[in-house]
Amino acid sequence: MAISAITEQLLAAKKAKGVSFTDLETLLGRDEVWIAAVLYLQASASEEEAQKLVEALGLGSEFVEVLTQYPLKGSLEPTIPTDPLIYRFYEIMQVYGMPIKAVVHEKFGDGIMSAIDFTLDVEKEEDPKGDRVKVIMCGKFLPYKKW
Amino acid sequence: MAISAITEQLLAAKKAKGVSFTDLETLLGRDEVWIAAVLYLQASASEEEAQKLVEALGLGSEFVEVLTQYPLKGSLEPTIPTDPLIYRFYEIMQVYGMPIKAVVHEKFGDGIMSAIDFTLDVEKEEDPKGDRVKVIMCGKFLPYKKW
Amino acid sequence: MAISAITEQLLAAKKAKGVSFTDLETLLGRDEVWIAAVLYLQASASEEEAQKLVEALGLGSEFVEVLTQYPLKGSLEPTIPTDPLIYRFYEIMQVYGMPIKAVVHEKFGDGIMSAIDFTLDVEKEEDPKGDRVKVIMCGKFLPYKKW
Amino acid sequence: MAISAITEQLLAAKKAKGVSFTDLETLLGRDEVWIAAVLYLQASASEEEAQKLVEALGLGSEFVEVLTQYPLKGSLEPTIPTDPLIYRFYEIMQVYGMPIKAVVHEKFGDGIMSAIDFTLDVEKEEDPKGDRVKVIMCGKFLPYKKW
Amino acid sequence: MAISAITEQLLAAKKAKGVSFTDLETLLGRDEVWIAAVLYLQASASEEEAQKLVEALGLGSEFVEVLTQYPLKGSLEPTIPTDPLIYRFYEIMQVYGMPIKAVVHEKFGDGIMSAIDFTLDVEKEEDPKGDRVKVIMCGKFLPYKKW
Amino acid sequence: MAISAITEQLLAAKKAKGVSFTDLETLLGRDEVWIAAVLYLQASASEEEAQKLVEALGLGSEFVEVLTQYPLKGSLEPTIPTDPLIYRFYEIMQVYGMPIKAVVHEKFGDGIMSAIDFTLDVEKEEDPKGDRVKVIMCGKFLPYKKW
Amino acid sequence: MAISAITEQLLAAKKAKGVSFTDLETLLGRDEVWIAAVLYLQASASEEEAQKLVEALGLGSEFVEVLTQYPLKGSLEPTIPTDPLIYRFYEIMQVYGMPIKAVVHEKFGDGIMSAIDFTLDVEKEEDPKGDRVKVIMCGKFLPYKKW
Amino acid sequence: MAISAITEQLLAAKKAKGVSFTDLETLLGRDEVWIAAVLYLQASASEEEAQKLVEALGLGSEFVEVLTQYPLKGSLEPTIPTDPLIYRFYEIMQVYGMPIKAVVHEKFGDGIMSAIDFTLDVEKEEDPKGDRVKVIMCGKFLPYKKW
Amino acid sequence: MAISAITEQLLAAKKAKGVSFTDLETLLGRDEVWIAAVLYLQASASEEEAQKLVEALGLGSEFVEVLTQYPLKGSLEPTIPTDPLIYRFYEIMQVYGMPIKAVVHEKFGDGIMSAIDFTLDVEKEEDPKGDRVKVIMCGKFLPYKKW
Amino acid sequence: MAISAITEQLLAAKKAKGVSFTDLETLLGRDEVWIAAVLYLQASASEEEAQKLVEALGLGSEFVEVLTQYPLKGSLEPTIPTDPLIYRFYEIMQVYGMPIKAVVHEKFGDGIMSAIDFTLDVEKEEDPKGDRVKVIMCGKFLPYKKW
Repeated sequence: MAISAITEQLLAAKKAKGVSFTDLETLLGRDEVWIAAVLYLQASASEEEAQKLVEALGLGSEFVEVLTQYPLKGSLEPTIPTDPLIYRFYEIMQVYGMPIKAVVHEKFGDGIMSAIDFTLDVEKEEDPKGDRVKVIMCGKFLPYKKW
Repeated sequence: MAISAITEQLLAAKKAKGVSFTDLETLLGRDEVWIAAVLYLQASASEEEAQKLVEALGLGSEFVEVLTQYPLKGSLEPTIPTDPLIYRFYEIMQVYGMPIKAVVHEKFGDGIMSAIDFTLDVEKEEDPKGDRVKVIMCGKFLPYKKW
Repeated sequence: MAISAITEQLLAAKKAKGVSFTDLETLLGRDEVWIAAVLYLQASASEEEAQKLVEALGLGSEFVEVLTQYPLKGSLEPTIPTDPLIYRFYEIMQVYGMPIKAVVHEKFGDGIMSAIDFTLDVEKEEDPKGDRVKVIMCGKFLPYKKW
Repeated sequence: MAISAITEQLLAAKKAKGVSFTDLETLLGRDEVWIAAVLYLQASASEEEAQKLVEALGLGSEFVEVLTQYPLKGSLEPTIPTDPLIYRFYEIMQVYGMPIKAVVHEKFGDGIMSAIDFTLDVEKEEDPKGDRVKVIMCGKFLPYKKW
Repeated sequence: MAISAITEQLLAAKKAKGVSFTDLETLLGRDEVWIAAVLYLQASASEEEAQKLVEALGLGSEFVEVLTQYPLKGSLEPTIPTDPLIYRFYEIMQVYGMPIKAVVHEKFGDGIMSAIDFTLDVEKEEDPKGDRVKVIMCGKFLPYKKW
Repeated sequence: MAISAITEQLLAAKKAKGVSFTDLETLLGRDEVWIAAVLYLQASASEEEAQKLVEALGLGSEFVEVLTQYPLKGSLEPTIPTDPLIYRFYEIMQVYGMPIKAVVHEKFGDGIMSAIDFTLDVEKEEDPKGDRVKVIMCGKFLPYKKW
Repeated sequence: MAISAITEQLLAAKKAKGVSFTDLETLLGRDEVWIAAVLYLQASASEEEAQKLVEALGLGSEFVEVLTQYPLKGSLEPTIPTDPLIYRFYEIMQVYGMPIKAVVHEKFGDGIMSAIDFTLDVEKEEDPKGDRVKVIMCGKFLPYKKW
Repeated sequence: MAISAITEQLLAAKKAKGVSFTDLETLLGRDEVWIAAVLYLQASASEEEAQKLVEALGLGSEFVEVLTQYPLKGSLEPTIPTDPLIYRFYEIMQVYGMPIKAVVHEKFGDGIMSAIDFTLDVEKEEDPKGDRVKVIMCGKFLPYKKW
Repeated sequence: MAISAITEQLLAAKKAKGVSFTDLETLLGRDEVWIAAVLYLQASASEEEAQKLVEALGLGSEFVEVLTQYPLKGSLEPTIPTDPLIYRFYEIMQVYGMPIKAVVHEKFGDGIMSAIDFTLDVEKEEDPKGDRVKVIMCGKFLPYKKW
Repeated sequence: MAISAITEQLLAAKKAKGVSFTDLETLLGRDEVWIAAVLYLQASASEEEAQKLVEALGLGSEFVEVLTQYPLKGSLEPTIPTDPLIYRFYEIMQVYGMPIKAVVHEKFGDGIMSAIDFTLDVEKEEDPKGDRVKVIMCGKFLPYKKW
């Protein structure tokens, strides 16, 4: 679960500039999770988006190219992640995966939720008993094709 | 990724009775995903909830006990699930896991989203270009304790 | 890589009746590979299709239900298949996976070929130097969404 | 699923020269997928083919030797690939592997499709509902020998 | 590394009849290793061969069908076999696999030895210092196709 | 399945000198497969053999020491090799491993073929329908000791 | 199970200064295990705590930043640790894991012991028959939420 | 992570009798975790202890023998447990394993905490902010022997 | 790490008869570890030895056949054993495996200790500080053959 | 199964000095296997022992520190070792592990042989039919504690 050297440079630049992901969201007009995915080399920006990002992070234009490539995706090395924050999502599927499958099939029929035509938001829900993390995933339903 | 014999009986009874998860949601006042988790033996019902469920499914009361036990959780046998619907959630964490981690830490500090003090909803979002599956996860933020 | 008991009954009935996958293709107006996928419980038929299949195989109507369910997909138990015919496809991706990725990205941009909105044909190409197996896969290109 | 340093140099040169795989296909009289396989060190070129490639990419002749060697094949490090584009082919075999096996055996008898005496093409199929990726695999059928 | 119930019945019948693999070799005009592969459901006999085998083993004709099917191949369950006799072949490839690859490529060019158009003999070599096992593998060389 | 830096130097020297494994076989009076095993650091040469080899490859005497050490054996990194040429031997054991075991036990009793008191030859068998690779393994039979 | 270069520098500085974990406990007012977790980059210190630590170890202030980051947690590389001291804790869960689960559920109901809102102490218990290691884990009980 | 049939019978009897682990602790004069370990066939009771247990659970004396055998230990099937309660202990070692090792070595020298000469207690710590689970492990320190 | 049904019957008979492995050692004139290996179906007895064993255990002669077969060896299911007694031998090789290799090579040259021409004894060494287990392995040294 | 850089320096120095493990045994008054374990960084020497070793190997005193540290133990990288000499010990446990367990329990009761309070000797047994390797393991028996 190593972080690539390029991502480390991008994050260091972001820290040095003191810009948050929310600042970048405002600047680019793209969601902060998607922008984080670009910095982790899991999504690819357009030339224009990459230019803006690189500028905002105070970096040279040689970073534009790497941010516009089509990345080899998959940032977790071991099959089961050890980082507790990330592991919880794996556990959620162990416990609630089959129930989700049952409910999706009942609502939509046979098929899947796309992970490509897909968006993901992270929100903070203030709560006096302890703030809550809200993760909203939204993907196109793709019905299985018959032929 | 075998389904237990008990779950198969419960699902067969549900099918025979023609009740949907949404019907059960109305009956019990609990979310349909949580109810599906009970049927897959991943969550435990109270005596009263189990009684209502068993009745709604037209089953004998010997099923009450199994639905109120504290289950051995984890319904996916192999470490990486092969079912395409479930696999997509694994892929989402491969691609967006590190970005989510970065955004959560920026918003909340060091800690995790609880998978125990946690709720999960599945909604259908109608869309002329193809309906969308919306999965909303909401867990308490637990900050790492120092001692 | 065990074959389920139901699939074994379906295949035994098919053999007893002496019908080929091509016969079933003609009967149902669906491709033989897709029909084979139904018999292996990897795709789900409509009520009407299941009725026709069950009849053609000379089986009782209790098989209709199992053929119309939304299956738990994934018919290969070990992560790397041992059957030589199936293994070759795994090897093809080991050798040509990255080149395919490079060519698809050059032709289409960032995204994937859908395995859901997808068809697959197997054809026999007669050749004096030895007949050839032709496998044609055709899936919708899904571009990665930005948000 | 790391890309070797040599492949990275070859791809960088290709990008700098602005030549596509299709351009190289025209130049060499070989399919673009096979050429991509050579650049990923999964197939070996002849002296003459290597010379032409190296020239087209504007590289020195020291690259000829590496392109003509018999490579240690297999470009995917983990047993199950994490990149979504490549994973879909793995999933296709999970879902359609046994059906393909059944249909091939019915059409050809016991044996396999060769992955060595084998060609693979990637085509773009324009479609108003979304373009489609077409992958055509064609391998000699090898019947199991008895002795 | 379990032995299937059918193989166990075949081996028990062979033992009860007191016939050796060499006897069966004489009877069928096929090599004893190939015949053993049929009994282990790793190779498929013709109708006529199956008839002769079943008769020689004193079994009913219901065994003919199972011996003529196209088997799901692969008789070793774990990825690395634990049985010492079989493990030694795995070890041989750990120690001599790369050297074999180097010599085959030097003698034949890029390609592989077919495991399908392939025969294998086991011979006993008498030796005063201790008898020796001789295993002779012979497979067609398949050169990698370019296209 | 990386090749060690020392092996790469040895192979580069061999290529530069234009000597084949067969030439080295003549020079040393040892089989070419065994010599290849020495170059891959899987077998250890005597001082005298190492001297001759180093000379034939036009290398300095500092290579003598590394060729005479007792190597840490095992040249394939992953448990299941991805290189198609080497994989075929793994597949042969999947398909013919149990049959070989049955035949060896019938011929020799309980025990194994040694992989240490062992030789291996690779021969080219010319054949108008396509040349064949012949691999001859010969190991001492070791009966299980009782005590 | 490699130790990161930064941790090695921190431990070397600690050794050079001759300070024990207990000394650091006194200095910071935090438990020695938690402090060790900070040095192994598994927990994050506040600015002030990091400053004190760095000073106590005689290091430059460039180490403050790394000690205040939110770490990628998980310090054991292989899934099952090989170090005997650490393995024993894995074995304890193999032998006593299910009993602990039974007792916790009986005492608390369905839920888990938090590993985040959690403390851990290591104490030395002097004993004439051999000193004993006492490890005290204390985590908040989190009941499973229903929704 | 299946529960053996015998354990299921023992737990069912315990439930039918309405005795808690604490009741059994009082009855036998042994800790409840150790008793739970006996019921999960991970520890072996003496004849007398087994007799008392069997009686308290209202079972026949044929259960005495199974409770006094030396069990094959290890109750978690997969290498990494999926049950969230048990997984947390695995995670604790991922995060705090190396720090514990550092502190134990500093306090005791080279060696380990025995998992055999070992006790484990589970206590409930009442807390207005949420009750806490306390797990106390205590094992003899075993110094590495030199010879 | 399941025990086969036959072994369970043999051990139950041994217990019922009240004979120890030492008694069987006296009776057969074979070591008790080897006899235990026969009962666990890891070694094969002669007709005469099997007869004696079966008689001593008060079993019918149908057990003679199973004890004289050439077993599929390997009694530990997972790659790394979970039983603490057996795991310690695995750990010994993790810690002392390379040192043993170094010493054996220094004393004997390149080769291995045979695990086939091999004996193993377990002795009890009385010691006032706690009895000791002595395990003596003795295998023929097999030098690597050159050819 | 890589050898650490420090071990390589130590072994090179030992070779250059021409001292055997037996020489070091005489010099230190410690067993040669234990000394080899120190050189492989699997056991830790005292200051005095390290001083003597370093001197005997003709190395600088900077090596004293590394030899006196408490090492992270476990020198075999993959779960199943590929080196044939080391693998044989793994195979011995596959074949004789359960029998050893049965005999130890019969002789000692429930518990294990310690791998910490433990010694191991390697001896050469001259034999006209081929010398034999004798490995003597001796560990304290640790009975399972009840509490």
